Amino acid sequence: MQTKILLNEDRIPKQWYNIIPDMPGPLSPVIHPGTLQPVTPDDLLPLFPMGLIEQEVSQQRWIDIPDEVREIYRLWRPAPLYRAHRLEKALGTPAKIYYKYEGGSPAGSHKPNTAIPQAYYNKIFGTKRIATETGAGQWGSAMSFACQMFGLACTVYMVKVSFNQKPYRKSMMQLWGSNVIPSPSDQTNAGRAILAQFPDSNGSLGIAISEAVEDAATHEDTRYALGSVLNHVCLHQTIIGIEAKEQLAIAGDYPDVVIGCHGGGSNFAGIAFPFAADKANGKNVRLLAMEPTSCPTLTKGVYEFDYGDTAKMAPIAKMYTLGHDFMPPGIHAGGLRYHGASPLVSQLVNAGIVEAKAVAQKGCFEAAVMFSCAEGIIPAPESSHAIRGAIDEALQAKEEGKEKTILFCLSGHGQVDMTAYDAYFGGQLEDYEYPAEAIKESLAHLPKVEF
Amino acid sequence: MQTKILLNEDRIPKQWYNIIPDMPGPLSPVIHPGTLQPVTPDDLLPLFPMGLIEQEVSQQRWIDIPDEVREIYRLWRPAPLYRAHRLEKALGTPAKIYYKYEGGSPAGSHKPNTAIPQAYYNKIFGTKRIATETGAGQWGSAMSFACQMFGLACTVYMVKVSFNQKPYRKSMMQLWGSNVIPSPSDQTNAGRAILAQFPDSNGSLGIAISEAVEDAATHEDTRYALGSVLNHVCLHQTIIGIEAKEQLAIAGDYPDVVIGCHGGGSNFAGIAFPFAADKANGKNVRLLAMEPTSCPTLTKGVYEFDYGDTAKMAPIAKMYTLGHDFMPPGIHAGGLRYHGASPLVSQLVNAGIVEAKAVAQKGCFEAAVMFSCAEGIIPAPESSHAIRGAIDEALQAKEEGKEKTILFCLSGHGQVDMTAYDAYFGGQLEDYEYPAEAIKESLAHLPKVEF
Repeated sequence: MQTKILLNEDRIPKQWYNIIPDMPGPLSPVIHPGTLQPVTPDDLLPLFPMGLIEQEVSQQRWIDIPDEVREIYRLWRPAPLYRAHRLEKALGTPAKIYYKYEGGSPAGSHKPNTAIPQAYYNKIFGTKRIATETGAGQWGSAMSFACQMFGLACTVYMVKVSFNQKPYRKSMMQLWGSNVIPSPSDQTNAGRAILAQFPDSNGSLGIAISEAVEDAATHEDTRYALGSVLNHVCLHQTIIGIEAKEQLAIAGDYPDVVIGCHGGGSNFAGIAFPFAADKANGKNVRLLAMEPTSCPTLTKGVYEFDYGDTAKMAPIAKMYTLGHDFMPPGIHAGGLRYHGASPLVSQLVNAGIVEAKAVAQKGCFEAAVMFSCAEGIIPAPESSHAIRGAIDEALQAKEEGKEKTILFCLSGHGQVDMTAYDAYFGGQLEDYEYPAEAIKESLAHLPKVEF
Repeated sequence: MQTKILLNEDRIPKQWYNIIPDMPGPLSPVIHPGTLQPVTPDDLLPLFPMGLIEQEVSQQRWIDIPDEVREIYRLWRPAPLYRAHRLEKALGTPAKIYYKYEGGSPAGSHKPNTAIPQAYYNKIFGTKRIATETGAGQWGSAMSFACQMFGLACTVYMVKVSFNQKPYRKSMMQLWGSNVIPSPSDQTNAGRAILAQFPDSNGSLGIAISEAVEDAATHEDTRYALGSVLNHVCLHQTIIGIEAKEQLAIAGDYPDVVIGCHGGGSNFAGIAFPFAADKANGKNVRLLAMEPTSCPTLTKGVYEFDYGDTAKMAPIAKMYTLGHDFMPPGIHAGGLRYHGASPLVSQLVNAGIVEAKAVAQKGCFEAAVMFSCAEGIIPAPESSHAIRGAIDEALQAKEEGKEKTILFCLSGHGQVDMTAYDAYFGGQLEDYEYPAEAIKESLAHLPKVEF
C-alpha cells in the first residue's frame, strides 16, 4: 500500500498563500509599546527589511516565492506526505490518517521554511548580520542554517539554561557559523541590567528577545528575525499546506479535519491556512489547533491587546493572550510555551473558523510513542500535541463507526529531544493543572489600548 | 537546477544483488573458532535463522526482497540521491558530485536496510527475541526499530561507557521497546567473568558481542543479529547502490568513482557492489573505501584468517585484519573502529578491484563542516570519511582540469553526534598516527589456519 506521496522539485510552490485578504473582517492595528499608537513601517525599519514589512501587511492573496528561496528549498522540499497505514491499523480506526513531515529539513523542523526567506529578504536589503533569540534551539538552528546559505553573519542569544543543558542545537548553530551567546549577556544594556540585579540568572525567552532586538536596533547593518507569531512568518509556512493539498489530491483525498500543534502559531498556520481558504469558499473542513494545558493561550486566554514580550519592549497586538508576564510551568515542548499567539490565528479562533483544544503532556508523549512504534519517525515533543489530536479524532471515528480523513503536520523530529522521552519513561513528567490563578493575575496587567 | 532525484515507492528494488557469484575466485571458508574446521549450517543455526544462513552462502545473483520487507522499506525508501551543486561551487571544481542520503531512515542511518530483513527472517523462522550488541548505538537503534516493526522482543547489550555517555540512542532503543543492558552485565557468564575481574569495567564491543552471542546460544527462542561484516548484511545493503544506479541513469550520468566509508564494510558494500558488477563486466569505474588512519584495516592490515572478535568466540574468516586484539585509539567515528573487515570487501581489495584510502579525523570533520555549510545536512562522523574522499577527488579534478563524476554514500546524519563536532571546534581532536607498533604486536596473535 502506498505510504508516501512525493512531489518532485518542479512542484515546489511558486507562491505563498497570504490569508490577509480572506480574513473575516479587517486586521487590528499593531501598537507601538512606547507611544501606544499604531506602528508605521518607519517604526519597524530598524528591525526588519522592507521586503518583510511589506509582506506583514500585504493585501495580495498570492505572493511570489523568489527563485533564490526556491533554490534553497530544493535541499529538502517538497516535504513528503505520509499515509499512516500502520498507525491506523494499531488504532483499529476506520479513519484515514495523513501526516505532512517537516522534520527532513537540515535543522530537523519546519522552521527553515521561514528562516530561508527571512535571510533572503535581508540579504537583498543589504543586511550584513541577523540578531535573533532562541530557547531550546529549534529557531536558532534554522536561522543559523539560513544565514549560512546566504552568507550573512548571525548572532543568536540563547537562553542560558538551554545553552548549558541542551548543547546539541547550540553546536548545530556553531557548525553553521553563528555566534551563540548565552543570555543574559554583557553584550547589551538589557542583558547587563539583568546581570547587575541577578548575576546567576538562567535567562528567559523574554530577556533573550530584548537582547536580540536591542542588538539589531543599535547596529546599522543588523536586523532582527522572529521565528513565529508574525504575519510574514505564517505566510512563509503556508508552503506546508499548499504542498499537502496537492499531495492529497494525488491520493484522491481531502481532509475532514486539519490538525497542527500551536505555540506562536506559525506551524499551525502553515498547515491550516491553505485549507482555511477553501473553508472561506464554503468547503466543509475543520481546522484544529492543539496546545498544552500548561500554556492554554487559545483555550483559556482572552482576545485582547497585549505586549508580545515580557519586557514590554515588543509591539502590542490584538491576540489571544495569557498576559505578557504569565510564566508557564516548565514543560518539555519548549516551543509551545508562548503567552500569546499569532494575531491571524487568534482572529480566526475568535471568529469560530479555527477550533482549539488543550492536551496534557503525558498523553502527548503516549501518543508520540505509539506513533513512533507504528510509523518509525520519532516526533519532536511539540509535534506530539498534533499527534494526540489526530489519534483522538481517529478513536472518535472508531467509536462512531464513521469514516473520516485526518491530516496533521508532524513539524519536526525528536532525535535531539530524547531526554524528554527519558523523563516520560522515567515517570518524571507531571500533567500541570490549568494554572487559573496565575493566568488571572497576569491578565490583570494588560495594556490599555483602544483601537 | 535539479538537486534531488527521487524515486516513487513502486521503484523500491524487488531484489538485492548478491556479489558472491561474481567474485574473483572462490570464497574462503569460514572457520569454527573451537574446532578450527569449516563451519557448517548446523554450527550457525543456534545463532541465525535458516533464511539468513542460506543468504550467507547463496550462489544466486539476484535474491528476492520479501514483500513484507518492502512494505517497511516504504517508510523511508527509496532514499533520495542528491546532486551537490552548492558543494561543487564552494570547491570550484569541474567535477559533478552526487550523494546518496541514507540518514532519512527512522534510526538516522543505513543500518535499518539490513535490520528489517534480519527481523523478518527471524520472525518467519519462529524467533521470539533478538539479542544483539551496540557500541555508540547506531546498530542497536536500527535493530530495535526493526524488532518493533515485526513484533519481536529485543535485548541490546550496550557498551557501558556509551550507555552512560551517549544516552540519546539508548533512549531511542527504549522508545522502540528494547531492553537495553549496559555491558558487561550480570546476565551472562561472559559478563559475570569480566565483572569478577574488573568490577568497574567500562565494557568494549568485544565483550558486548560475547554477551549477545551467549544470550542467543543459550535461549531456544532467541537468535543473534550482527549489523555489518557478514555476507547477508552486505547483500541487504546493496539496495543503496541499486537505487543510486537507477537515479543516476535518470540524471543521464554514471560515476567515475564510487566512495563509501568503511568500518565493517556493509555501508561500503551497499553503495559499491552494484557498481562492482558493472566493473566485472568491463565498465570503467573506481570503487574507493575510506577508513580512518587510526584503524587502518584495509590499508595497513594483512589479508589473513583471524577471529571476528577480541574474545576469540566468533568464527574465523579470511579478511583484512589488524589482529583481533588490536585496540584502536578512541576516535569519534565509533562505527569505524573494527579490527577486521567484511570478507567480501577484503577479497575485492586483495584482488585490486576495490581501492582503499585512510584519512585522519580532523580532515574528515573539516570536510563535514564544509559539506554542511554548503548542503545543509549535518553528516555522521563515520560518513565524513566518505565526504573527505569525495572532496579530495573533486579537488584533484580541479587541479587536473578534468571532468569527473563522483558518487558517495552519506550513510547517516550527525544530529545526535554534536559532541564530536564540539570536540573538533574546541581543538580537542587529535590525528592519531598510524599505530605501527600496536598493529605489529596484535598481528603476532593470528590463529593458525590452513585452508
